[in-house]
Amino acid sequence: MKIPEILLIESEHKPGNLARILTVIGDYGLTVEHLTMVHREGGKTVWEVTLEMDAEADRAVFDQIEALPHAKVLGRSDRVFNRHAGGKIHTVSRVNIESQQVLRDIYTPGVARVCLAIQDDPSRAYDWTNVGHTVAIVTNGTAILGLGNIGALAGLPVMEGKAALFAAFADLTGVPILLDSTDPQEVINTVKAIAPSFGGIQLEDIAAPECFEIEKALVESLDIPVLHDDQHGTAVVTLAALINACGRVGRRPEDSVVGQIGLGAAGIGIVRLLQEFGMKQVMGADLDPDALARLESMGGQPSTLDEIMAKADVVVSTTGVKGLIRPEMVREGQVILALSNPDPEIEPADAIRAGAAFAADGKGINNVLGFPGLFRGALDARVKRFDDAMLLAAARTLANLAGEHDLVPDPLNRKVHDAVAAAVAAVAITT
Amino acid sequence: MKIPEILLIESEHKPGNLARILTVIGDYGLTVEHLTMVHREGGKTVWEVTLEMDAEADRAVFDQIEALPHAKVLGRSDRVFNRHAGGKIHTVSRVNIESQQVLRDIYTPGVARVCLAIQDDPSRAYDWTNVGHTVAIVTNGTAILGLGNIGALAGLPVMEGKAALFAAFADLTGVPILLDSTDPQEVINTVKAIAPSFGGIQLEDIAAPECFEIEKALVESLDIPVLHDDQHGTAVVTLAALINACGRVGRRPEDSVVGQIGLGAAGIGIVRLLQEFGMKQVMGADLDPDALARLESMGGQPSTLDEIMAKADVVVSTTGVKGLIRPEMVREGQVILALSNPDPEIEPADAIRAGAAFAADGKGINNVLGFPGLFRGALDARVKRFDDAMLLAAARTLANLAGEHDLVPDPLNRKVHDAVAAAVAAVAITT
Repeated sequence: MKIPEILLIESEHKPGNLARILTVIGDYGLTVEHLTMVHREGGKTVWEVTLEMDAEADRAVFDQIEALPHAKVLGRSDRVFNRHAGGKIHTVSRVNIESQQVLRDIYTPGVARVCLAIQDDPSRAYDWTNVGHTVAIVTNGTAILGLGNIGALAGLPVMEGKAALFAAFADLTGVPILLDSTDPQEVINTVKAIAPSFGGIQLEDIAAPECFEIEKALVESLDIPVLHDDQHGTAVVTLAALINACGRVGRRPEDSVVGQIGLGAAGIGIVRLLQEFGMKQVMGADLDPDALARLESMGGQPSTLDEIMAKADVVVSTTGVKGLIRPEMVREGQVILALSNPDPEIEPADAIRAGAAFAADGKGINNVLGFPGLFRGALDARVKRFDDAMLLAAARTLANLAGEHDLVPDPLNRKVHDAVAAAVAAVAITT
Repeated sequence: MKIPEILLIESEHKPGNLARILTVIGDYGLTVEHLTMVHREGGKTVWEVTLEMDAEADRAVFDQIEALPHAKVLGRSDRVFNRHAGGKIHTVSRVNIESQQVLRDIYTPGVARVCLAIQDDPSRAYDWTNVGHTVAIVTNGTAILGLGNIGALAGLPVMEGKAALFAAFADLTGVPILLDSTDPQEVINTVKAIAPSFGGIQLEDIAAPECFEIEKALVESLDIPVLHDDQHGTAVVTLAALINACGRVGRRPEDSVVGQIGLGAAGIGIVRLLQEFGMKQVMGADLDPDALARLESMGGQPSTLDEIMAKADVVVSTTGVKGLIRPEMVREGQVILALSNPDPEIEPADAIRAGAAFAADGKGINNVLGFPGLFRGALDARVKRFDDAMLLAAARTLANLAGEHDLVPDPLNRKVHDAVAAAVAAVAITT
């Protein structure tokens, strides 16, 4: 696995010195992932240089940098771990507790009246508490990223990442809930038991097929929005990308034969939403016969990898298998979204060379584009569940907001999330 | 019930005008609870005047204020509800998500390495996530404040209040968890299921006797600190007050006969901690025979209200019954802490007149003095459970920090909470 190797390098602040350091690195065969100036004083600059290196690779390049007359390797760092130190979220008081009067208002005795008012009309909890802006981020750790069943606690950095993104892009409070259980019924019972604490439930990184049963039971039994992000959040962003990819080559998505390679949570979610969008012919391939049966029950056409590559106009792959699609499989004029991260099923450049009309990988197709606005919209509208109209509205909004040369918009642009939320809320209120 | 009536009164900014308004209010028989200047412009001032009034009382005083030549009632407000609007807590990102690089570090792909490091050594979750600073605040709504079983959702403003205080005084993330269940085993099972999400569990406003069973089962089965605040948090603050009350009249608490009136969660918790502190003779009274049996099983002496008032040197009452202790019951030289809020079992002035050596009510005896530092200390020390040495250390610290004329210190002073946390952590590490 390639990991970031972060060097702190001190260099005399003179023309050409940084270039000489980077030349040594380039000659060694390494790519600079990131570079930033940390400190400058007394004619010397400290640069933070991030290289992607194999964990096992030798570090002789460090000595070569040291051998330059003007440079010194001060040390190695790990920016990723530094950014996670102490956790990525915390809760703050919205009230400045600065006087006895404030304390008496927000706590005893004042709080009693607010409690009684909510007892009298429970819907007022949305006015006088944070519950309507709070989303549980629930995982049992069985499918954390592409890492598999590494356990719920090991998945917590992902859940905190989601919560940080909820906070930054939608002003929502995300609460990681870690469950050490692989039994779907236990997960269902626990989430039902704690559901009164939340305005919505995001299911996260729960393995297929259990994720389908868990989501279905919770959607049916709870009267707050429940969403399995790996299915529907991913589907929303994928559909947005697919609309723009088809537009780029002048193809109408609804008239295309679509092939979905990989029918896990993401694949099944994508097939479902593409069908709702209007695609009538959806083929699907997976090694698991149960996944193919699931596809068939949804009206999709069980197929093989080879059949899909031979027949589909639009191919989406979410298998996690690097290089699964060999260039000779590509059909002339195909649109290919090879979405597995970090390594796609086929490199876009290779697909184009093999005759694809358009190809992209999953690097920009980030589900952070979906879930903050989806939940903000659903909670603003106070609907009891997500429906397909809301998901389609989010996908169309994302497709519209993408720049001319992009498949999806920039997730760092707060306006994108506001627009998704507004579109979702508007649809939710009218249906 | 008296509730705050908050008036916005505009007055010409001239000497004597505010006094004239307050004179009208005083002549009407009302006490000013709070007064603050809101706005001043063009020779006019808007005052926010908070009066404690019976909900049913007539509001003729408003007309009398209006009748003043220089004053005008602009409107009525409700500061308490205003302060709860939108909730009292929210979660924020500790990382400024401002670039693709940050997004890639805190979310995919960077986060994967942090996950794997935690899978490899679960204790590192305390370094790279917020779990070690996160406390679940769990209630089933069966004993919210003195309001009784009003349900978990109606209790949420209290839970958010606790979370706001955790944030303000101990930099801890409190997560309200609402459970709609009166079955102790269901509560136990649910809390066990979600426990991996938290560094500690605070049980809150759960009715006796179920609270005892729930706390015992969770302490025994979980390896993170669990504390029922109504028992032990209240006991810590009460013991601190009692140490200082006895000191005020030159009595050694350990040599005193103590009478605890009311053996609910708070009463039982107080008895337990007083015994640990060294008080050998503890009498207790309650109308519930099961509560008396519980006291006896703890080595206390089941008694009646009359017996306690006749024999005890130190009386603590937590019954919620206003005026339960009649002045003629008071024994010469007694120390009385009548702690029920908002109305004590006997007014301190009445107790003193009846011969008590010292008396206080519960207005300053606020358990916010306890729980933030208790949890911060336990989490800093990474202990698996609270023990009595930690509770006693907290009580002694609070007793020491009280001003010369106070029983306990000011809860708004952050240093108090830091000192409690440090004392608790120091004891926790050594035992």
